Amino acid sequence: MEVFLRRAPAQPGGAPELGRVPPRSFPRADDVPAPGRTAPDRAVPDYIEYYGRVEHFSGAFAHVGERRRTGARVKSRTPGEQKVVALQEAIRRSGLKDGMTVSFHHHLRNGDKVTNLVMQTIADMGFQDIHLAASGIFACHEPLVPLIESGVITQISVNTFNPGPVARAISQGKLRKPAILRSHGGRPRAVESGEMHVDVAFIAAPTCDEMGNLNGTHGPSACGYLSYAYADAEFADTVVAVTDNLVPYPACPIEIGQNLVDYVVKVDSIGDPNGIVSGTTKITTDPVNLRIARDAARLIDQAGYIKDGMTFQTGAGGTSLAVAAEVREYMKEKGVVGAFGSGGIHSYFVKMLQEGLFRALFDVQCFDLDAIRSAAEDPRHMAMSASLYGNPHTKGCIVNNLDVMILGATEIDTDFNVNVITGSDGVILGASGGHNDCAAGAKLTIIVTNLLKGRLCVVRDRVTTITTPGETVDVLVTEYGVAVNPRRTDLLERLRDSGLPLVDIHTLRRIGEHLTGTPAPQEFTDRIIGVVEYRDGTVIDVVRQPK
Amino acid sequence: MEVFLRRAPAQPGGAPELGRVPPRSFPRADDVPAPGRTAPDRAVPDYIEYYGRVEHFSGAFAHVGERRRTGARVKSRTPGEQKVVALQEAIRRSGLKDGMTVSFHHHLRNGDKVTNLVMQTIADMGFQDIHLAASGIFACHEPLVPLIESGVITQISVNTFNPGPVARAISQGKLRKPAILRSHGGRPRAVESGEMHVDVAFIAAPTCDEMGNLNGTHGPSACGYLSYAYADAEFADTVVAVTDNLVPYPACPIEIGQNLVDYVVKVDSIGDPNGIVSGTTKITTDPVNLRIARDAARLIDQAGYIKDGMTFQTGAGGTSLAVAAEVREYMKEKGVVGAFGSGGIHSYFVKMLQEGLFRALFDVQCFDLDAIRSAAEDPRHMAMSASLYGNPHTKGCIVNNLDVMILGATEIDTDFNVNVITGSDGVILGASGGHNDCAAGAKLTIIVTNLLKGRLCVVRDRVTTITTPGETVDVLVTEYGVAVNPRRTDLLERLRDSGLPLVDIHTLRRIGEHLTGTPAPQEFTDRIIGVVEYRDGTVIDVVRQPK
Repeated sequence: MEVFLRRAPAQPGGAPELGRVPPRSFPRADDVPAPGRTAPDRAVPDYIEYYGRVEHFSGAFAHVGERRRTGARVKSRTPGEQKVVALQEAIRRSGLKDGMTVSFHHHLRNGDKVTNLVMQTIADMGFQDIHLAASGIFACHEPLVPLIESGVITQISVNTFNPGPVARAISQGKLRKPAILRSHGGRPRAVESGEMHVDVAFIAAPTCDEMGNLNGTHGPSACGYLSYAYADAEFADTVVAVTDNLVPYPACPIEIGQNLVDYVVKVDSIGDPNGIVSGTTKITTDPVNLRIARDAARLIDQAGYIKDGMTFQTGAGGTSLAVAAEVREYMKEKGVVGAFGSGGIHSYFVKMLQEGLFRALFDVQCFDLDAIRSAAEDPRHMAMSASLYGNPHTKGCIVNNLDVMILGATEIDTDFNVNVITGSDGVILGASGGHNDCAAGAKLTIIVTNLLKGRLCVVRDRVTTITTPGETVDVLVTEYGVAVNPRRTDLLERLRDSGLPLVDIHTLRRIGEHLTGTPAPQEFTDRIIGVVEYRDGTVIDVVRQPK
Repeated sequence: MEVFLRRAPAQPGGAPELGRVPPRSFPRADDVPAPGRTAPDRAVPDYIEYYGRVEHFSGAFAHVGERRRTGARVKSRTPGEQKVVALQEAIRRSGLKDGMTVSFHHHLRNGDKVTNLVMQTIADMGFQDIHLAASGIFACHEPLVPLIESGVITQISVNTFNPGPVARAISQGKLRKPAILRSHGGRPRAVESGEMHVDVAFIAAPTCDEMGNLNGTHGPSACGYLSYAYADAEFADTVVAVTDNLVPYPACPIEIGQNLVDYVVKVDSIGDPNGIVSGTTKITTDPVNLRIARDAARLIDQAGYIKDGMTFQTGAGGTSLAVAAEVREYMKEKGVVGAFGSGGIHSYFVKMLQEGLFRALFDVQCFDLDAIRSAAEDPRHMAMSASLYGNPHTKGCIVNNLDVMILGATEIDTDFNVNVITGSDGVILGASGGHNDCAAGAKLTIIVTNLLKGRLCVVRDRVTTITTPGETVDVLVTEYGVAVNPRRTDLLERLRDSGLPLVDIHTLRRIGEHLTGTPAPQEFTDRIIGVVEYRDGTVIDVVRQPK
């Protein structure tokens, strides 16, 4: 295996001091050539029908500076007004019209019944040409497909997309207008800036009172904090809480207050508990994945990030959890207390909080029952709005304070650009979620993945769709070696004697292609079916309909 | 004593059912003549220099409907940027200029050191013509008087004003521009609507981390929730947290998040613990006041408001607390569980929460140490923003859910208009606080006061300054009898056989004047030194400089 350092010798002067690793601010993007896979190369047009004028991506921190939030409309309520109405009545009073935007959160995940119920009611009431702004879409949302086919839903904006029937329908070109694929931080940015104006927000509420005070952590359909809904509650013209648990006034605790809610709708059930969360999240038992996790954890240690006050985020996938398990051992061994774990919270982080390995958790969604219980009971387990989580146009989002972020990838190219949106066949599989938010914020962004998935090599000459720019990705850890982004000369210096199997990412591509064969390029039509917005609102890529 | 019912016989048809007492919505103001003491009579001009065009008060719910919040400016922060700077540097970076508005909250009450420190620093830096938007001003703010005299501070907006040197300076005409006197709900309304644009908000923070996550419930200068600061944090161009307790990241719990804070300033001390809160709040022992309290509580009971789900607010004055003590006994006797107690929270409400007499508390500020401890520890003791508390331009503020509100008065006139702003000599003594917010929201608003204060009668033919319109005040309870607003025919009907000493308010005036003599009318110059905004932003009165 070619050791990367041979090709990119360490900079003179030694490694920068750890706390002083230069942040990924705009100047960094100027230091080195652009990722090379941005607008011109990718043929992102300057104007996209049903989307509008395109602001092209030009660097992870090129579009920051001063911004203005939009001014929300508020219908004043006087004493004695009632808010509890039937769903049809709430829709009628909201003034919904053809062409408007309705929004939903995805904290009920694959158990959500609210989106289907509301959209079917909207269809039954005869509305057409609705823009569905759901923070996430899951397999359970299959009933939306006929509404797409019949033109009730003509546009979708989404930031989490589990592989499933709606994503397939979009890939098949059934949606009249292109889907807008955002990140978890990009969505509230779009809502707060007014770029995505929500006419009516429907907020599934596991607990709610008659005035609209609500929370997600209590009740028979408890799903944890409702962070993705906060921006909608604040900025939508009309806010409708939909609950199956109408409690005596006042609901307690209050996540979203009555000052933001127009109507309350009582339904029999907002979600299927079996789909809302998995009972528990589980660490991988696959020996190859465990080795990847061990290498990633060792890298974190060798790079000097296992230290008091450390901050750490990982998803709930089996390999990511295995990294957390390894990091936990390092922390215990060194007697380290971290500042926080963040992101979607799972039982593993809850355990680390309880063990005193973190002082706090920042929670944007709960992945399992332990996380929901902890959110309801432990004040150190704090909610963060999606805006506080990852919106780049705030005075500092939490991802900016991340030391280490563990992420996955569907594809990664030799410039470290990552795709988590489309398969190599061009079919939509997901959306950014927090991927490009966390990559941009964290001091050390690590992609953990098998080099070979199915019969395909994850490392490509170019990714099918860019979700996350390579300038924000530091390391790729695979079963065939660890590739460090050559921009991170400081990291390469630190890892020189780590014993980790360092390789050039091009070598990984060659190994993978040697084993799987050179992939036949997928062909696409000219039709744009998805617009991929970077977290700052620029367009980093488009998804064209596969042939 | 003349019994009021002789003059105003009950309406045919009997008393309305309790839950159906008509809310005080706009139509009610049309039913009967206007309070009679509004703009024309009071000679509120259509334009006030340094204030602008006047929108005249024309009814408690005449200015509601749809409103638009302003769009806040946000300076984006990228990873690695530092926020902790010296005070002068924070002011410099904020871009403060002569003529701008700076804001402060008053949760440190008479122990606040931050306002004086920041304003003196602003003065030392050579700024002039500053608009001081402090939610409250206390005796401890005496050092501001020289800054008023020297033209550093030329305008003041305030909603709580304890009698003291700054209020006196304003009454003496020392402030170049008229003070704007708002209510607790009116202030966030003005900030959120953009009517009062805050250029730089300085937020005293009992606990804060280096990124600006902060809370008021923990730390050596803990003062309870920082509710009055929430709107400033959200809408000011620049937000500076000032703390004497910089804790390891992240502060926990977080009341105001790092996404809203630009700079963090560390100082030695933000407040004097002895002035921040009284150790405990105490019930009156004066037998006359105790009788007033007993009558008020009996009235609440007889009017049917002691019932499950009841909601109740009272201030921390000795007589108000005595009403709470009496109400507590009624609740215990009847086995009633109330929904919430609200407002400024004191040990008495904390006890009632702990005894199970309330399911929750809504806290806009803590009055004593028990309240601070409870806010820090008991999740049922919930913060409410000042906007959620009383802003009429929201989708429903908490005062709208109040059954019973106990308030004081400096003067009350025979139309039930109340003055809590100026003494009968025209000197400024206070500001509305939550007075006109709660009066407007509550189903039953009771004024408790001695008829005779010093050598003056509280009931006047006309009040010196209107804070709260009579259409929102239901009952006056004094040691000389209980006067019901004749608008409340339902209440008169219910109280007919209550045994309470019902009197006409004119009778109370006659009794008082008989005992004290007819007051000599205070004379005023033409100069307007204060503009009294009703909670909805209309001008309900002006304060002219006394001769």
